Amino acid sequence: MTAIEETNVTYEQLADLEQDFEDAELEITRQQAVLMKPLYEKRAKTVADIPNFWPLVFEQSPPEVDSYIQPSDSAVISTSLKALSVSRFEVEDGGKGDPRSVVIKFEFNENEYFENTVLEKKFWQRQSKDGRFSGLVSEPVAIKWKPGKDLTEGLLDQAVAIYEQDKKSGRTGLVKVKDFTPEQKALQKKIQATGMGGVSFFAFFGYRGYPVSEEESRLAVEKDKEERRLRAEGKSKNDDDEAPELVEEGDEDDEEEILEIFPDGEELAVAISEDLWPSALKYFTQAQEVDGISEMDFEELEDDEDEEDEEPPAKKQKA
Amino acid sequence: MTAIEETNVTYEQLADLEQDFEDAELEITRQQAVLMKPLYEKRAKTVADIPNFWPLVFEQSPPEVDSYIQPSDSAVISTSLKALSVSRFEVEDGGKGDPRSVVIKFEFNENEYFENTVLEKKFWQRQSKDGRFSGLVSEPVAIKWKPGKDLTEGLLDQAVAIYEQDKKSGRTGLVKVKDFTPEQKALQKKIQATGMGGVSFFAFFGYRGYPVSEEESRLAVEKDKEERRLRAEGKSKNDDDEAPELVEEGDEDDEEEILEIFPDGEELAVAISEDLWPSALKYFTQAQEVDGISEMDFEELEDDEDEEDEEPPAKKQKA
Repeated sequence: MTAIEETNVTYEQLADLEQDFEDAELEITRQQAVLMKPLYEKRAKTVADIPNFWPLVFEQSPPEVDSYIQPSDSAVISTSLKALSVSRFEVEDGGKGDPRSVVIKFEFNENEYFENTVLEKKFWQRQSKDGRFSGLVSEPVAIKWKPGKDLTEGLLDQAVAIYEQDKKSGRTGLVKVKDFTPEQKALQKKIQATGMGGVSFFAFFGYRGYPVSEEESRLAVEKDKEERRLRAEGKSKNDDDEAPELVEEGDEDDEEEILEIFPDGEELAVAISEDLWPSALKYFTQAQEVDGISEMDFEELEDDEDEEDEEPPAKKQKA
Repeated sequence: MTAIEETNVTYEQLADLEQDFEDAELEITRQQAVLMKPLYEKRAKTVADIPNFWPLVFEQSPPEVDSYIQPSDSAVISTSLKALSVSRFEVEDGGKGDPRSVVIKFEFNENEYFENTVLEKKFWQRQSKDGRFSGLVSEPVAIKWKPGKDLTEGLLDQAVAIYEQDKKSGRTGLVKVKDFTPEQKALQKKIQATGMGGVSFFAFFGYRGYPVSEEESRLAVEKDKEERRLRAEGKSKNDDDEAPELVEEGDEDDEEEILEIFPDGEELAVAISEDLWPSALKYFTQAQEVDGISEMDFEELEDDEDEEDEEPPAKKQKA
């Protein structure tokens, strides 16, 4: 007997309440995007004058970002990354879209690895009608590698080619393994042969996510809202028959599979947009300290949160 | 030679920019407090019908809270905690104060440990003029222990008594060890004899923080703002002579010491108000799961973020 079974409160009520909280958080994020935009622009102008600002930020990036950066990726970033920017494009100009949708834009100096000077990856927050997915989806972005310099060893090119094929042939949903095209089979094999942790950071640009169209997502969100509204008015109906279907254990070939060359694309996009980007000044300052500014210089300039070992009463905190 | 030394950008510019970011974050927190208030009220009403809601939340509390709860504290909380509430009293009714100031209110059923049914701890965000402190300060709150039941073993009573003495005698600032009253010396000795980690959670009610009056804080904040404004207008002046004084190494008796029976009071207040409180439904749900609701029941009711091990493509996320 658990606490909730002794009461008249239902799990659905609690779930709806949590959803209310999440909606409020989204509204906050929406307002935040508008409020912060001019500050990010000011920061961009200031740091444009600091050589290696963004490479130094990446050097001190949190594990949620850093763990995806291989040594060869690091070489590209440290020598050639000129700027990073994150935009919550559905809301930051006052729009009423989803604040979780983001564009992450990397700007590069001329470099020996690829021709692109801009790599832009766009993520849309989507919800599937089958109830299985709610999160970020994206489209593979091609990189024009210089000869012999493809850090993804062909993975990204294949992912882009398959995406283009899918679009052309109108295959927008989940695909069963047995219905894979020869190109999909080849990519599947290659993914299986690549050890996780060994994939280049730049495979991130190949992330697709669950196949959910804008239209499907809009309808799924509306349906959810309507059901919550009915429940809130006490016109609840039994939802049992609408529970997500369980995937039947069956022949592997009969299962659907999403070919994903960078399965953690959403996690990395979130880590960049909610941590690396807003806290870039902090990471840069850390990099400066590591680079050997003396402690004295720094104490005079700014009180640091890390100085927790100080003797009382000189407890310092960031003012 | 570090990156910033090669440019015209100064550390002060970066520090001011960080301060701009922090100001914006505070404004967000202010708006959030107003927006969330009705939701927290709705939640309070709903969970009031669930026996043990708050004890179960504490049972699953994050390490930043849980590590302060001793087994004997846990006995009080699990049998007697009726409600918890957090209020950002300076802003949540639309006020323009500091959103970091909070009241944490614990409501208890009759219990064998103390007479109080309400324990309320108020924290004010303050900044000292000497530049050494910016954070939460508070006043010790007395607990009427039942005979032989004082979980703090006299620490809290002593802290309260000294605070009352200080108020009466007008000692509002830092006190040098050599100027300690007999009561302060006794408390100092007791604190030194108490191993950290062994102190009761209820010693939290004795936290004071750095001695900064409302007036001192107001002036310090204004001075900071004015200096930033001048710098922003290019009327910067050399701040070297205003750097915080370093504490001279000297005779121990000649040093100032804050007698704090719960030195991590601020950290715990922040963990409760920024994590336990907003995420209470999540922690309660976790406790329910631990208490043995079967996985199947739960899968039908809500998709859980922890289900990361599922086979693709059934990647589930909280919708």
